[in-house]
Amino acid sequence: MSKPYIRLDKDNAAVLFIDHQSGLINITRDYNPDQFKNRVTGLADLAKFFKLPVILTSSFENGPNGPMVPELLERFPDAPYIARPGQINAWDNEDFVNAVKATGKKQLLIAGVVTEVCVAFPTLSALAEGYDVFVIADASATFDEISRETALDRMRVAGAQVLTWFAAAGELQRDWRNDMEGFAGILGPHIAPYANLIQSFTRAQKEAKS
Amino acid sequence: MSKPYIRLDKDNAAVLFIDHQSGLINITRDYNPDQFKNRVTGLADLAKFFKLPVILTSSFENGPNGPMVPELLERFPDAPYIARPGQINAWDNEDFVNAVKATGKKQLLIAGVVTEVCVAFPTLSALAEGYDVFVIADASATFDEISRETALDRMRVAGAQVLTWFAAAGELQRDWRNDMEGFAGILGPHIAPYANLIQSFTRAQKEAKS
Amino acid sequence: MSKPYIRLDKDNAAVLFIDHQSGLINITRDYNPDQFKNRVTGLADLAKFFKLPVILTSSFENGPNGPMVPELLERFPDAPYIARPGQINAWDNEDFVNAVKATGKKQLLIAGVVTEVCVAFPTLSALAEGYDVFVIADASATFDEISRETALDRMRVAGAQVLTWFAAAGELQRDWRNDMEGFAGILGPHIAPYANLIQSFTRAQKEAKS
Amino acid sequence: MSKPYIRLDKDNAAVLFIDHQSGLINITRDYNPDQFKNRVTGLADLAKFFKLPVILTSSFENGPNGPMVPELLERFPDAPYIARPGQINAWDNEDFVNAVKATGKKQLLIAGVVTEVCVAFPTLSALAEGYDVFVIADASATFDEISRETALDRMRVAGAQVLTWFAAAGELQRDWRNDMEGFAGILGPHIAPYANLIQSFTRAQKEAKS
Amino acid sequence: MSKPYIRLDKDNAAVLFIDHQSGLINITRDYNPDQFKNRVTGLADLAKFFKLPVILTSSFENGPNGPMVPELLERFPDAPYIARPGQINAWDNEDFVNAVKATGKKQLLIAGVVTEVCVAFPTLSALAEGYDVFVIADASATFDEISRETALDRMRVAGAQVLTWFAAAGELQRDWRNDMEGFAGILGPHIAPYANLIQSFTRAQKEAKS
Amino acid sequence: MSKPYIRLDKDNAAVLFIDHQSGLINITRDYNPDQFKNRVTGLADLAKFFKLPVILTSSFENGPNGPMVPELLERFPDAPYIARPGQINAWDNEDFVNAVKATGKKQLLIAGVVTEVCVAFPTLSALAEGYDVFVIADASATFDEISRETALDRMRVAGAQVLTWFAAAGELQRDWRNDMEGFAGILGPHIAPYANLIQSFTRAQKEAKS
Amino acid sequence: MSKPYIRLDKDNAAVLFIDHQSGLINITRDYNPDQFKNRVTGLADLAKFFKLPVILTSSFENGPNGPMVPELLERFPDAPYIARPGQINAWDNEDFVNAVKATGKKQLLIAGVVTEVCVAFPTLSALAEGYDVFVIADASATFDEISRETALDRMRVAGAQVLTWFAAAGELQRDWRNDMEGFAGILGPHIAPYANLIQSFTRAQKEAKS
Amino acid sequence: MSKPYIRLDKDNAAVLFIDHQSGLINITRDYNPDQFKNRVTGLADLAKFFKLPVILTSSFENGPNGPMVPELLERFPDAPYIARPGQINAWDNEDFVNAVKATGKKQLLIAGVVTEVCVAFPTLSALAEGYDVFVIADASATFDEISRETALDRMRVAGAQVLTWFAAAGELQRDWRNDMEGFAGILGPHIAPYANLIQSFTRAQKEAKS
Repeated sequence: MSKPYIRLDKDNAAVLFIDHQSGLINITRDYNPDQFKNRVTGLADLAKFFKLPVILTSSFENGPNGPMVPELLERFPDAPYIARPGQINAWDNEDFVNAVKATGKKQLLIAGVVTEVCVAFPTLSALAEGYDVFVIADASATFDEISRETALDRMRVAGAQVLTWFAAAGELQRDWRNDMEGFAGILGPHIAPYANLIQSFTRAQKEAKS
Repeated sequence: MSKPYIRLDKDNAAVLFIDHQSGLINITRDYNPDQFKNRVTGLADLAKFFKLPVILTSSFENGPNGPMVPELLERFPDAPYIARPGQINAWDNEDFVNAVKATGKKQLLIAGVVTEVCVAFPTLSALAEGYDVFVIADASATFDEISRETALDRMRVAGAQVLTWFAAAGELQRDWRNDMEGFAGILGPHIAPYANLIQSFTRAQKEAKS
Repeated sequence: MSKPYIRLDKDNAAVLFIDHQSGLINITRDYNPDQFKNRVTGLADLAKFFKLPVILTSSFENGPNGPMVPELLERFPDAPYIARPGQINAWDNEDFVNAVKATGKKQLLIAGVVTEVCVAFPTLSALAEGYDVFVIADASATFDEISRETALDRMRVAGAQVLTWFAAAGELQRDWRNDMEGFAGILGPHIAPYANLIQSFTRAQKEAKS
Repeated sequence: MSKPYIRLDKDNAAVLFIDHQSGLINITRDYNPDQFKNRVTGLADLAKFFKLPVILTSSFENGPNGPMVPELLERFPDAPYIARPGQINAWDNEDFVNAVKATGKKQLLIAGVVTEVCVAFPTLSALAEGYDVFVIADASATFDEISRETALDRMRVAGAQVLTWFAAAGELQRDWRNDMEGFAGILGPHIAPYANLIQSFTRAQKEAKS
Repeated sequence: MSKPYIRLDKDNAAVLFIDHQSGLINITRDYNPDQFKNRVTGLADLAKFFKLPVILTSSFENGPNGPMVPELLERFPDAPYIARPGQINAWDNEDFVNAVKATGKKQLLIAGVVTEVCVAFPTLSALAEGYDVFVIADASATFDEISRETALDRMRVAGAQVLTWFAAAGELQRDWRNDMEGFAGILGPHIAPYANLIQSFTRAQKEAKS
Repeated sequence: MSKPYIRLDKDNAAVLFIDHQSGLINITRDYNPDQFKNRVTGLADLAKFFKLPVILTSSFENGPNGPMVPELLERFPDAPYIARPGQINAWDNEDFVNAVKATGKKQLLIAGVVTEVCVAFPTLSALAEGYDVFVIADASATFDEISRETALDRMRVAGAQVLTWFAAAGELQRDWRNDMEGFAGILGPHIAPYANLIQSFTRAQKEAKS
Repeated sequence: MSKPYIRLDKDNAAVLFIDHQSGLINITRDYNPDQFKNRVTGLADLAKFFKLPVILTSSFENGPNGPMVPELLERFPDAPYIARPGQINAWDNEDFVNAVKATGKKQLLIAGVVTEVCVAFPTLSALAEGYDVFVIADASATFDEISRETALDRMRVAGAQVLTWFAAAGELQRDWRNDMEGFAGILGPHIAPYANLIQSFTRAQKEAKS
Repeated sequence: MSKPYIRLDKDNAAVLFIDHQSGLINITRDYNPDQFKNRVTGLADLAKFFKLPVILTSSFENGPNGPMVPELLERFPDAPYIARPGQINAWDNEDFVNAVKATGKKQLLIAGVVTEVCVAFPTLSALAEGYDVFVIADASATFDEISRETALDRMRVAGAQVLTWFAAAGELQRDWRNDMEGFAGILGPHIAPYANLIQSFTRAQKEAKS
């Protein structure tokens, strides 16, 4: 009954940021806000580092939901940006699906706000069309734990792989030697304890040498 | 191994409220009472908004379990109302099953009190008869987390889709343009942070124009 | 070493709502949003029921903080409303202090957002001027538990009485016979389990009589 | 893909209490002790009420694990009692398996201490031999949540139905009319809020009649 | 700055049970219901064991609040029972205060439902009249933690000693030799882990002797 | 019994950062690491904004405790920096006390790692010498909640005011009009929900104008 | 209003271990058992390191409470050991008080099981006799958080200083230079993250040198 | 639909410790550090007791990640030790896979830091190659609960059995009589409450005999 290990492949993956908008983020409560921002930007830095195709989409950004957060807009000025006129499931928007198809990738990393709607619906749609979906659980947020847990389970049962941004980082990188400096450069700013390790290590070595 | 996405369809869905009675609700402890009332009435408003057929059923309402809560009775004065004479699993009551069949719908949204009995038993029965069941986890309540989690898992394993009332709202609505005002009208009263977003947005625009 | 019991007195009390604005409320995280709204409006209904003088004040309501929530504006259309031009501590605003003095009351019930700033500062100022301050802890909100707990302790050490809206309700009412119907009328809508008790009781009696 | 609903049947079920010993219970921490005792005795009363065959087994009761708790010994003085000489998995003990077979039942309700060993091992063994196993999660206890959750998941994946004693009560009873008084008689002592409902109801009716 | 140790004295103490009514208890949420019942009856058994004078009082027991729970009525059939006609603070009821005075005791152990009203108000009143008040925190219940914590702090600041029923048990008993059997007889039924210790000990000794 | 309100005064305050070292921070567990870093840098930005004198001190930074974190070193390159040779209580180090005295300020904002040692000891020493101490609770960290809570209480009892960095920000700023842009500039980067409010507001106004 | 800083002084302090017995420890639930054992032995190692006089006392060790744990007996074979014949408050035992007096110390570090009885009673007694009491909160355990918190508050109000074993360690040591190796030698085994820091540091230096 | 029970077999199992390094452990937060160390060493003692082949591997141990913890190095001085030059997934390292193959075992017990990377990747790889993988959840650690839970679920879905070190202990031992003394000898030091049981039992017997 063993299954093949479908492994993230930096040459076959694209990242979809769905509805990370200032208003919507403020209605979420399942993560500490500092931490959530740190994870979303961690995923974004990951996408940049591996040069993965990125697609941004928003829902009613000219209304109460608010604009896409600047951390994403600034990092991906040239990414396809689909401001959906009304479709709740981004996969119901033809432009969005076309943008996904245009990447030519089969593995989709999906994150968004709120988890049970903006992430779950396109995930279920993409799975039904044969994509491998990797839901980035900690770069997606919602109202409370019951909303998150039921959403993650629903996607998992449907075949999605649910993981965190750091798990995705490790699976894409595979070997530190591919670019040690570069990879460490995206971990430190998003994982404070790891930055502390580096500082302690550097100082200890400096002391030893002096 | 990908599965089809069985998606809530407002033309093929009915809502079953099972044993939301004043006494029974007071023995539950897994949700904050304010929040639970807000989610049950959210689901009820959703049913009204989409004109979904609704069925109400209660268990020994003339005993300690108490009457169906007025929030449901007032919203659905004409819905089939089955006061069960003793069956614990509503699906064991012929009138109830007939009422379900009479709706002609294949997708059942089920919520109730308590989750592991009044929701789980009819859910398992309906699944066995081929219905698509969508358990509304946050409009169902019980004694504690272990009772809830084991119940939700049992239904999930049996094939139920477990989600929250807001996920159901999004999946039924599909596109804001179908009725933007109407849809927003059911979100605000049940999601305080969303109401705040609307107020902030309206005021900001008013200030900008003045 | 026993102290006199300084007891809320409906003839000597005024209520101050400080910065309950749509934007600010959305940055708080120490209470469930449904519950918080329910407690703030509970306190407001209390003030109306006992005809206590009420003062509203806001901070930069024409900026990101957003407008005072409609639940308060609608309940107190004629209350003094001080839109502060910049003072963080409402007590630094002369109009506000004059409004407080104009009530002629010595007991101040204070609630606001956020607890450690908008509630704590005027509380500490009012205590220093000899007022008896009753901080309504559950109608005040902030970022997290450490912010709330340190703020409540700081005010308690300075001499404030810290309590909840329901404790204030009981202390003001003193005897149910003063107006049983009226008092029950403010408890039910804000305490779902109490409403359930009333419904169960009414039904049980109806059954007994039939 | 729908599955049949394997439903507890009082004519086809037996209950196995495994290692509820005074010493072992005192090393568990995943439930409040008052609550755990209440759930174990609730399951025991259930077994008596439905006259289900019961089997008791203990592990090294003459050593530090301590004796089977008196609440079980007193309720089931005539049940097969297997004091295992060393087997950790009760199913490795021939006497135990023979006692199970002698019941002639196919549905096994299993509870024990600790969950991941004394419950999980015989559950996995019984499933492998074709029994339908119903693990009573809240009448089983262990060190901490990670021990419990991984154990419940392991059994669930292997095909066990995991539920609580109250869910089992409802599924076995099926219809209140089978014995209303008797069934209520086992709920009240184990569910304090339900006892409260009955007392409130009785008093309300008495008042109405007087 | 050291203070004298005001120590519970069985010859100078009385116990007040305030509003432990079936309806009110069902609206509380800060303790597990099994545990709460166990602590209230623990305090009651303590009062009986030390033959402390007991006073019972209820609020609107012929309405939704429901009757005093039978566990107290049965244990204290001859205790003064004051069914208050409307006073929220029991100390505002002359009969109640007279009953307290009639005990001739200076130390009052107070427990009740809900903590911030039914316990806090008479506690503050009694302290103001010079009584030593010992609030039994775990035999008193309320809506949530913020209600409990603010209430306990308010009473503590006013001079009350806040403790648990088991702390009171130890302070009243002082020396096991005063009645070892009797004292153990009230601990076992209310503290399951302690009962387990006794069973393990007894069995170990029996094994050693055989 | 009312006390004067000792209010933070930007002309009379200095900030002490004690042992925020990379190794020590990694042994703390009472805050989320992302959040803690955000609060420490928030306090640092506050000190810069108000041009408060700052003193840095570290303990064995050439050993396992590691170096002062770069976020502080970079912000305060010219601040007195006392690398203590062994004193655990910074106040036992003459250079440190002299640096404090040299500021000429009477109000000390103290933060550090770990709370019960590196913060508590100098706080208790400074209070004994007549300083007004404002402990910044959320810019100080330690092993667990019991360590934090007992430490904060110990300092509170001794006369310290315990508050959070945001409370200090508000109390120092007093009036937004003193420098609205500047003050907002330190809130946004450290309070993600507040940054979201600003973005939503700006976009809403832009939409209104277009 | 500033108070003198009563500081632990290794030349004026004694340590009292009260009722750390195998049976009693197993009925506690407010700390993780691994952690509790680690803190009790941490305090014991501290006492040995500073050569503080130690007194051990137990309650009914020949009954269900069980023997003093071997970790203490082995470390202090020559300490006064008072097996109390019945007194619940150790201070009611003359031998115990005499042993305390015989130390000639005025500062008492007290830890025990359970907190609200075995720690609180002698603490309140010792305070009343003018001792400075330092309650070691994390080397004392009890049933649950409400028992712990009310007990710690009761002692704090009476004048005790409540702290953790690590805070005591720092306050007694005062300066690392008094015995750096020795002091580090008691931290590592009881604080796993600190041991990790040392290992990382040592390795980093070794690498730098090679 | 029943599945065979794949049961741990001491003759067919090997244990893989992956990246338990001093630096990495200090960035984890999902377990209490005392408890985690206790579980890792518990698994190690288990491996020694059953003479299971053990493989150790580390990642960049000459950098900030730090060295393998001494508790493992000391217990397994002769085990294959693969210091990986860069591969994140240990299974990508040929030496590691060869070492696994050289054991000739089909059942792999895997533990490591961090769970979602260092444990999950080799687990998924080993499952794909047909090994039976037993993930030891409580001897593996990571940043937070969402990282742990998503990782455990991902491995579970792929076919891994997820359990705790104590569950593995029981499944490997099967019968106490295989070596009672030896087996108890590894439980006591890692499960404090079990050690307490043994001490209580021994004392009780000693008392009975004297």
